[in-house]
Amino acid sequence: MADSYDGYKENTAGRANVEDTPELVAYYKKLEEMKVGALWTVANKIEPWQPAPESVPVLWRYDDLREHVLQSVTLVSPEKAGRRVIYLENPGRKDISAAVGLLYSGLQVMNPGELASCHAHSSSALRFIMEGRGAYTIVDGHKMTLGENDFVLTPNGTWHEHGVSEEGTSCIWQDGLDIPMINALDAGFYQVHPDLNQAVSYPVDDSTVMWGTPGLKPQASAWSKPYSPLFKYQWEPTRDALKALAAISDGSPFDDVLMNYINPLTGGHVMSTIGASMQLLRPGFNGKAHRHTGSFMYQVAQGSGYSIINGQRFDWKKRDIFCVPAWCWHEHVNTSDSEDAFLFSFSDLPVIEKLNLYREEALAENQGKQLA
Amino acid sequence: MADSYDGYKENTAGRANVEDTPELVAYYKKLEEMKVGALWTVANKIEPWQPAPESVPVLWRYDDLREHVLQSVTLVSPEKAGRRVIYLENPGRKDISAAVGLLYSGLQVMNPGELASCHAHSSSALRFIMEGRGAYTIVDGHKMTLGENDFVLTPNGTWHEHGVSEEGTSCIWQDGLDIPMINALDAGFYQVHPDLNQAVSYPVDDSTVMWGTPGLKPQASAWSKPYSPLFKYQWEPTRDALKALAAISDGSPFDDVLMNYINPLTGGHVMSTIGASMQLLRPGFNGKAHRHTGSFMYQVAQGSGYSIINGQRFDWKKRDIFCVPAWCWHEHVNTSDSEDAFLFSFSDLPVIEKLNLYREEALAENQGKQLA
Amino acid sequence: MADSYDGYKENTAGRANVEDTPELVAYYKKLEEMKVGALWTVANKIEPWQPAPESVPVLWRYDDLREHVLQSVTLVSPEKAGRRVIYLENPGRKDISAAVGLLYSGLQVMNPGELASCHAHSSSALRFIMEGRGAYTIVDGHKMTLGENDFVLTPNGTWHEHGVSEEGTSCIWQDGLDIPMINALDAGFYQVHPDLNQAVSYPVDDSTVMWGTPGLKPQASAWSKPYSPLFKYQWEPTRDALKALAAISDGSPFDDVLMNYINPLTGGHVMSTIGASMQLLRPGFNGKAHRHTGSFMYQVAQGSGYSIINGQRFDWKKRDIFCVPAWCWHEHVNTSDSEDAFLFSFSDLPVIEKLNLYREEALAENQGKQLA
Amino acid sequence: MADSYDGYKENTAGRANVEDTPELVAYYKKLEEMKVGALWTVANKIEPWQPAPESVPVLWRYDDLREHVLQSVTLVSPEKAGRRVIYLENPGRKDISAAVGLLYSGLQVMNPGELASCHAHSSSALRFIMEGRGAYTIVDGHKMTLGENDFVLTPNGTWHEHGVSEEGTSCIWQDGLDIPMINALDAGFYQVHPDLNQAVSYPVDDSTVMWGTPGLKPQASAWSKPYSPLFKYQWEPTRDALKALAAISDGSPFDDVLMNYINPLTGGHVMSTIGASMQLLRPGFNGKAHRHTGSFMYQVAQGSGYSIINGQRFDWKKRDIFCVPAWCWHEHVNTSDSEDAFLFSFSDLPVIEKLNLYREEALAENQGKQLA
Repeated sequence: MADSYDGYKENTAGRANVEDTPELVAYYKKLEEMKVGALWTVANKIEPWQPAPESVPVLWRYDDLREHVLQSVTLVSPEKAGRRVIYLENPGRKDISAAVGLLYSGLQVMNPGELASCHAHSSSALRFIMEGRGAYTIVDGHKMTLGENDFVLTPNGTWHEHGVSEEGTSCIWQDGLDIPMINALDAGFYQVHPDLNQAVSYPVDDSTVMWGTPGLKPQASAWSKPYSPLFKYQWEPTRDALKALAAISDGSPFDDVLMNYINPLTGGHVMSTIGASMQLLRPGFNGKAHRHTGSFMYQVAQGSGYSIINGQRFDWKKRDIFCVPAWCWHEHVNTSDSEDAFLFSFSDLPVIEKLNLYREEALAENQGKQLA
Repeated sequence: MADSYDGYKENTAGRANVEDTPELVAYYKKLEEMKVGALWTVANKIEPWQPAPESVPVLWRYDDLREHVLQSVTLVSPEKAGRRVIYLENPGRKDISAAVGLLYSGLQVMNPGELASCHAHSSSALRFIMEGRGAYTIVDGHKMTLGENDFVLTPNGTWHEHGVSEEGTSCIWQDGLDIPMINALDAGFYQVHPDLNQAVSYPVDDSTVMWGTPGLKPQASAWSKPYSPLFKYQWEPTRDALKALAAISDGSPFDDVLMNYINPLTGGHVMSTIGASMQLLRPGFNGKAHRHTGSFMYQVAQGSGYSIINGQRFDWKKRDIFCVPAWCWHEHVNTSDSEDAFLFSFSDLPVIEKLNLYREEALAENQGKQLA
Repeated sequence: MADSYDGYKENTAGRANVEDTPELVAYYKKLEEMKVGALWTVANKIEPWQPAPESVPVLWRYDDLREHVLQSVTLVSPEKAGRRVIYLENPGRKDISAAVGLLYSGLQVMNPGELASCHAHSSSALRFIMEGRGAYTIVDGHKMTLGENDFVLTPNGTWHEHGVSEEGTSCIWQDGLDIPMINALDAGFYQVHPDLNQAVSYPVDDSTVMWGTPGLKPQASAWSKPYSPLFKYQWEPTRDALKALAAISDGSPFDDVLMNYINPLTGGHVMSTIGASMQLLRPGFNGKAHRHTGSFMYQVAQGSGYSIINGQRFDWKKRDIFCVPAWCWHEHVNTSDSEDAFLFSFSDLPVIEKLNLYREEALAENQGKQLA
Repeated sequence: MADSYDGYKENTAGRANVEDTPELVAYYKKLEEMKVGALWTVANKIEPWQPAPESVPVLWRYDDLREHVLQSVTLVSPEKAGRRVIYLENPGRKDISAAVGLLYSGLQVMNPGELASCHAHSSSALRFIMEGRGAYTIVDGHKMTLGENDFVLTPNGTWHEHGVSEEGTSCIWQDGLDIPMINALDAGFYQVHPDLNQAVSYPVDDSTVMWGTPGLKPQASAWSKPYSPLFKYQWEPTRDALKALAAISDGSPFDDVLMNYINPLTGGHVMSTIGASMQLLRPGFNGKAHRHTGSFMYQVAQGSGYSIINGQRFDWKKRDIFCVPAWCWHEHVNTSDSEDAFLFSFSDLPVIEKLNLYREEALAENQGKQLA
């Protein structure tokens, strides 16, 4: 039981502003016995004027992490570990093992010839390939071969597993999942495949053939699932699309040239709970600051520069990972005058949008630039 | 920093099963310095086999609460308190002031002539009237008069305020909100109306006239908001509808005769994040047990009986409130042979459904009855 | 073969304006042999500046029709006639037996104890009861009892049949169907029920209980069909809803107080191809003129007055029927200073809207009043 | 007035079967005076057992048409003709200048340096390029350059115009429009651009850059129009997609490998009223017969073979055009053992599907092959 109950009071009309008195404190303690409380003792805390995320901005340098990720290969087997993953732990969300907001992220490593066991869970997941050759993912019988900067989905409820072919090299990728969100909603189920691995029941990379042609879909295929039938989004056409778009468009003052990965059958986000984007910061791009709801994880797919997040500068280069918690000011800068920078990102925007919680604000002061 | 890291290991293929060694513990501690961790030390915790809610089943007896709710009138003014509410605090979710799951609930009291200040927030809210005459709610200029067992919406983003007319009596109602969910998503905004109160700009109860006729809508009205334009759901037609439906239908073995409150323009839930239902347990109804995802708050609108929740029996009568956390077995019984029992409930089902997280299971053993 | 080919030429830039020459006429004749033609000889005809309906405004007086409708009872049996219906034939659409546009309408009569044979067809149908007691309709096993000014659906693909109970009186109703539209699309199928009649497999009027309560739907019922699950729309609540709406609303300058019948699960039209409305012209209402796409049939459910359609005045009283072809100016007047007038109408608006063909224009001249 | 009224009677239970008598004929004549008729005299005609299209199967040989199309260049100027088009006239639908069902089609020719005047209409249109270099289309300021077998949209309501660049050659393309459908619905409007031509206000081929990348869309672009934002569908990626799909799929017994052109934001048809497809008949493909609702126009984009339509064989080669009226049996054969055949087609399927009128049937007899 608490001793003081008026720690959140605010002297503003329309807000709770009740000072502790002995009589009130006695009342509060009696309430606690009945599993109730006085709203005015917590109202200002649970109804902040604007989002007050516990997550903090963090940048994880790949130079620091890489050796430890590789070291895990020598320390644990995939069989013992389930998945050999180093997860990113936001200092403000250690309680729920989140990287930012309600999103989980980690770096997974796999050696040639290794194959993880097959499982299914309520969480939606994605992988973004960081290095190595020969990686592949199998989703409900569809096998996708994966190269650097490729992005692949393993949606909610699908049987899936990851591996690296015998001819490949050690592969590292970033996982992104909504585990903390699913747990917050008390909705997580987990299953191990009865055979520990599933069969590949379709031609390799068939989802690219079926759904990866612009403006066309096969007559013969129905799709009613709540996620994209296109599981793999390849790097080269994505990069080329952004370069082509850059050639004809002004870009956004905040994000320069940004494209969302979409479900080709809906034009919407790739999965129910996680969206993803790739953006091109052209040489010398010096973005303005804005803030919005939604929690974001970024990975530098190419190039170097820095981002200022709530006044703090984070320098980044290829493969670095950083997060922008909800409603934090952020601006991106490509410090090269000659090289493009590409940022991959994923977020909980599908949820924020479905629940009608999206808000956005441009920084008005100082020509839109933060003082870092 | 932790001393032991293998507390969650499971000896099952496909699950993390790594024992601490001095070498590993040293590795873990180095990881922590870099704001990362080894997934296999937490995987089995954050990916449970099935939902493991921190919320526990609770029943709040109105006989216990009522006097304390009324006492608050003498202890604090609405001006000081903001809202004079006793909130229901689930022992498992004290950290987030939740009644169950990510839902908040409280009992509010207001005296004749009182009027709370007007505000707007990202949270969606509902009220269910428990006692008193003369209560009203104003939502974006629409004033709704409210009687016992009436249910009213104050959706996300609307200006709203509650009051009791001079001619009325002391009124108590149950509030239901998604505050913990909005906070979990770092998406909460709060505004106090610049004038502290809003004008009533439409005829009283106009939303009932506009949208409350079955099978008809006014030509002259567009509605593009993501919540029901019908703000008030009255008790008498709801009760009559359930009785009429009972006369022609078998009912569900779990819920007997249950109707969902809907947005008449979509047939879907009344708000983006909170759904609500009223159900009739006919005299002698002795329901079977099932469990499903979604967190539920119940209020007994009429009658008496009991519910068994995860093996624990909770006896209830009119105005008692209880919760069923996600994936808990539950069964309802009307102990009267002659009187109907009505249960009002609200839940996070709209979110569970939109994110494709709904699952349901009937109890197979013991003819579907729990051993309490 | 034609002799002249330049009958549609227009001397306006951007329009076809080619005069016949002997050389061209020879060319045209050669084209005809190959089952082709020169577009410029017909372009101005098939692409008019604005809709040029072949339908004309018509008013059918019930005083004239009633005796002939009743006479049909003595002339043909329902068995021989299939349905004993006098259909309304627009002078401009005799080729397709349409009442207006692509809509069919007729007056059907049935004596107590008579029951038509059961059939199903691709056309969507509705009935609006004009006189008599004891009428009923059965749709896919659901039986609806019907009184004056009740409106009932028999959608595309449903087994349906009409009858009058032994205790009833001779009944007359108006049928509305989309037969000409379905034929224009070459999509009409017709089936006679193998048993000639179907069983009633649900409680009488169950669709009203299930779907006819404002703001509620049964949990236990799924509905995925492309038409309203509420088959019957009763007169009394419709009238009361319009009166209540009139008390709080200004109404439209063209239509006064108008409500659309809706599918309670979508807020949209009752069927895929036909929409329906009821409107109240308050005593003394003197409407302004507008025109829009969509073809409309009206029946006077109550009261008396007149409508001016493309400059022609049509006086009407209870049970008269009239049509407004697409893009015709029309204005309605209730000539009584004390009595309400109610107009029921149905139209092809669902199709016009789905194909993005809706346009509307208010008459600007003469304060919005036509010169009749 | 008719002399005989019983020409459609059928001796089947549930169908109209009323013989003329002097009394009835007198009655019928009296009805006609009142602009009504007896349904049973026309019911069996207007409600056929199955679709009875007035359109007939036709094949238009390009060898026959080409010279006449080119001849039009010498006979009329684009200014005088509006558009220099030879339209395809189905012998059964000469009254409405339709090629099949409610679809119009024609062959348009334009010389280098020519530019048609800009207009907008309620009809939706498409072009499929048959020969020539340098063709282009401008839609609402977006200019698309076009080559052989490219397919371009000019949707309902858009300002559009066609031209051929000075450096090009004479170009011929097939136009497809829904003019007869829009006229049947009395919904056609036509406007000539006030300046006779519009400005190109976006980079050339920008819609391909914006919307033509699989699985990506620009963040910066909203699109709420009811048609595809991707206006041009190019031949080479379409051909390659079909070849790739053929390599991993069995194909349909009726259509072999068929892909629908889609709106990349919805996965649905490219326009509200007209859909389009490209199909690959692999060498030696010998299809089975089926029939379905919807009216179809085909153009042979490549290869040679034949189709049997309602028992009649039509041999075709590149650039020939043929139609399949609704509910006609049809089967396609590629007569080459080494060369692919590609068929482009467009249809009214979007309308048929939206109105819930789609039906399909495979030929059961003779192993699914018609006797031609």
